[in-house]
Amino acid sequence: MSDAAASPTPEPARRRGVTRRRLLGAAGAVGAAGLAGGGYAVGAAVADDGPGARHGATVPFHGEHQAGIATPAQDRLVFAAFDLLTEDVAQVRELLQIWTHAAEQLTAGRAVGTLAGNDGEPPEDTGEAHELPASRLTLTFGFGPSFFVVDGEDRLGLARRRPEPLRPLGPLPGDQLDPARSDGDLCVQACSDDPQVAFHAVRNLARLGRGVVVLRWTQLGFGRTSTTSRSQATPRNLMGFKDGTNNIRAEDAGKMARHVWVGADEPQRWMRGGSYLVARRIRMLIESWDRAAIDEQERVIGRRKVSGAPLGREHELDAVDLRAAGADGRPLIDVDAHVRLASQDAKDGIPLLRRGYSFTDGIEPRTGQLDAGLFFIAYQRDPHRQFAALQRRLGTTDALNEYIKHVGSGLFAVPGGVRPGGWIAEGLFARA
Amino acid sequence: MSDAAASPTPEPARRRGVTRRRLLGAAGAVGAAGLAGGGYAVGAAVADDGPGARHGATVPFHGEHQAGIATPAQDRLVFAAFDLLTEDVAQVRELLQIWTHAAEQLTAGRAVGTLAGNDGEPPEDTGEAHELPASRLTLTFGFGPSFFVVDGEDRLGLARRRPEPLRPLGPLPGDQLDPARSDGDLCVQACSDDPQVAFHAVRNLARLGRGVVVLRWTQLGFGRTSTTSRSQATPRNLMGFKDGTNNIRAEDAGKMARHVWVGADEPQRWMRGGSYLVARRIRMLIESWDRAAIDEQERVIGRRKVSGAPLGREHELDAVDLRAAGADGRPLIDVDAHVRLASQDAKDGIPLLRRGYSFTDGIEPRTGQLDAGLFFIAYQRDPHRQFAALQRRLGTTDALNEYIKHVGSGLFAVPGGVRPGGWIAEGLFARA
Repeated sequence: MSDAAASPTPEPARRRGVTRRRLLGAAGAVGAAGLAGGGYAVGAAVADDGPGARHGATVPFHGEHQAGIATPAQDRLVFAAFDLLTEDVAQVRELLQIWTHAAEQLTAGRAVGTLAGNDGEPPEDTGEAHELPASRLTLTFGFGPSFFVVDGEDRLGLARRRPEPLRPLGPLPGDQLDPARSDGDLCVQACSDDPQVAFHAVRNLARLGRGVVVLRWTQLGFGRTSTTSRSQATPRNLMGFKDGTNNIRAEDAGKMARHVWVGADEPQRWMRGGSYLVARRIRMLIESWDRAAIDEQERVIGRRKVSGAPLGREHELDAVDLRAAGADGRPLIDVDAHVRLASQDAKDGIPLLRRGYSFTDGIEPRTGQLDAGLFFIAYQRDPHRQFAALQRRLGTTDALNEYIKHVGSGLFAVPGGVRPGGWIAEGLFARA
Repeated sequence: MSDAAASPTPEPARRRGVTRRRLLGAAGAVGAAGLAGGGYAVGAAVADDGPGARHGATVPFHGEHQAGIATPAQDRLVFAAFDLLTEDVAQVRELLQIWTHAAEQLTAGRAVGTLAGNDGEPPEDTGEAHELPASRLTLTFGFGPSFFVVDGEDRLGLARRRPEPLRPLGPLPGDQLDPARSDGDLCVQACSDDPQVAFHAVRNLARLGRGVVVLRWTQLGFGRTSTTSRSQATPRNLMGFKDGTNNIRAEDAGKMARHVWVGADEPQRWMRGGSYLVARRIRMLIESWDRAAIDEQERVIGRRKVSGAPLGREHELDAVDLRAAGADGRPLIDVDAHVRLASQDAKDGIPLLRRGYSFTDGIEPRTGQLDAGLFFIAYQRDPHRQFAALQRRLGTTDALNEYIKHVGSGLFAVPGGVRPGGWIAEGLFARA
């Protein structure tokens, strides 16, 4: 690429230039081989007629919005945050072009290049997903506040392109954040029904970014966990409760437009059709929770454990009635119950599109307790008026706080979708 | 239980006594409800006719051998090592009885007790696997050398029952072991096609063991990763190579008897029908590997990457010909290729039953590199003549050593199977 000549660090740029030429050259051949071998057509619509069809399906990469937001949640998550190693905007732009090409291949169930090397070069794809279906892989890219400005410094010359809502969330009540699991200049959310496919994608994106970005933190998660048990329509979290009953439905275009998608009124054109991603690593204090009586657990959540019904109601999908009172005149749903404070339906409700995954990362060395909980991802138009406002409310009064800790946090601007022939966040780099 | 009265720590024993009575009482009711709700019959044979049947199936807990050894590998692993908190053998025996009962329920797709509590007690099951099929869950229990003797001290009065092969493996070439990811007094290998089911099992076993054992380390892993892609018959590891081509077939009763199962010649009767489990956390130096040319990768392994064929052959299942030479007279399979040194077929080959799972545990903070690799589990009759002998050979000369590090290790004696009405390692506690 011509940009490579201007690079202050010619070696990685040259390497990436070679890689990119290879990728672009190899794409046709790999694609053709994939089709000949009964592979997956690019942009085939998702079929969800059964576990088989579901696993083999692909989700189109191109569109008005990035995939992975309104896409029905896949079973597995690999989330990766990256830090920039360069101040050269041309290198970053080139990386996003390379990532776009790789994402087009990966989400279509193809390798990012040849599994064999050429001329003694390393293989262009690491190979562990060879012959595995895409399993609805989506790759969703975002930009943190620190991508634009660090300590007041306009590190890439793009500060004027930073959208107004992309400013740090600031301290929130109950924060116990670990910097090693928080923030990041860029992020990739990889979701797939197959963990090896999601891991393979992040690993190869990291590999293609070598010299320009470095992994800062990653998080694995699992959501819906059985391909056959459709009776468990709403997955249970690690507290044993159904989680996500009252989420915004992605099919509800009106709510999505009002609460999730950045609209045409956003002055930063590159963010139109995009959204803001808030990620929170929420550690559950499993051992304390497991010692709580069922009445206490249900009081804290405000729902029945087995059925998922709101207290005072019978069925999971029954509306939450925050005014219902028992014979003693006290509210059936406690004043500090999680479902009351987090309700999206109440008149002061704050709607968010949630995409939560359970995680379990072994033992906390200090205490011997399980390091497990919920990796909470929310999409919204305005993270300050939505997630942060909600968390300020929950963080001070939610009965659940006794059993959880927020230990990681990230905020990322997720630009609109990529058109065929375009690349991720293209408008961010457009000459004004 | 009557043993509880003799306990030096009455509170946990009482709690467990209550729990156990509840468990035993609740089992019938829960089982009946499960059947009424279309649940899973106890001990139903495994059907493997398709992804659906496979996920819903149960593997019988009872039998001559513990399940999870000869059982075809499930897709997901949660491995847990525990340390003892007590020197009271009665408490340990009681725990194994409680664990047996819980394992019978869990592997049959049932809760370990009521999801609701009784009399203000906490729920007897944490609930996150409610309505999830067992997904072929197996729970395999083992005993480390430190269960019997620590610093020469017979901690439970069972030292005379320690089988001779259960002595520490000692330092092996290339060991870079982290004590926090090694050893343990007891272990549980939970395998299932559903990660939430496997996690639920380990979590509830840990909960039932409170006061008697504490988690020392855990490891999550994934193996076969797609329920639909049967074309990938042999799963690929994170180096992108097919892994496990030449494993012992569990159907090969002759080889299993010769190399895996402890025989009738074992003086410790409780170990007959059992095996020895060696677990190794093998970190792959992913970034170095990904920079190696394909020729180097294939030379190191001794197989082709895409096809899995041994060098010089065409198909994955072709026999490895260690004597084949190229036109230049040099061996096609290098003298230090992994497949040559690890070959089970060579005249000095060392057969093991392998059960490997890939892992990825985020970023190594110091280097920013992926902490990922292979969690290697091997079953064998004699860990010193089998795994340790093999590792002494591999550890000094294997070309693969440039790209891997052994960072965790565990050795456990896995007793024979449990008969209906019996409990895990019952014979270990029998009065002589």
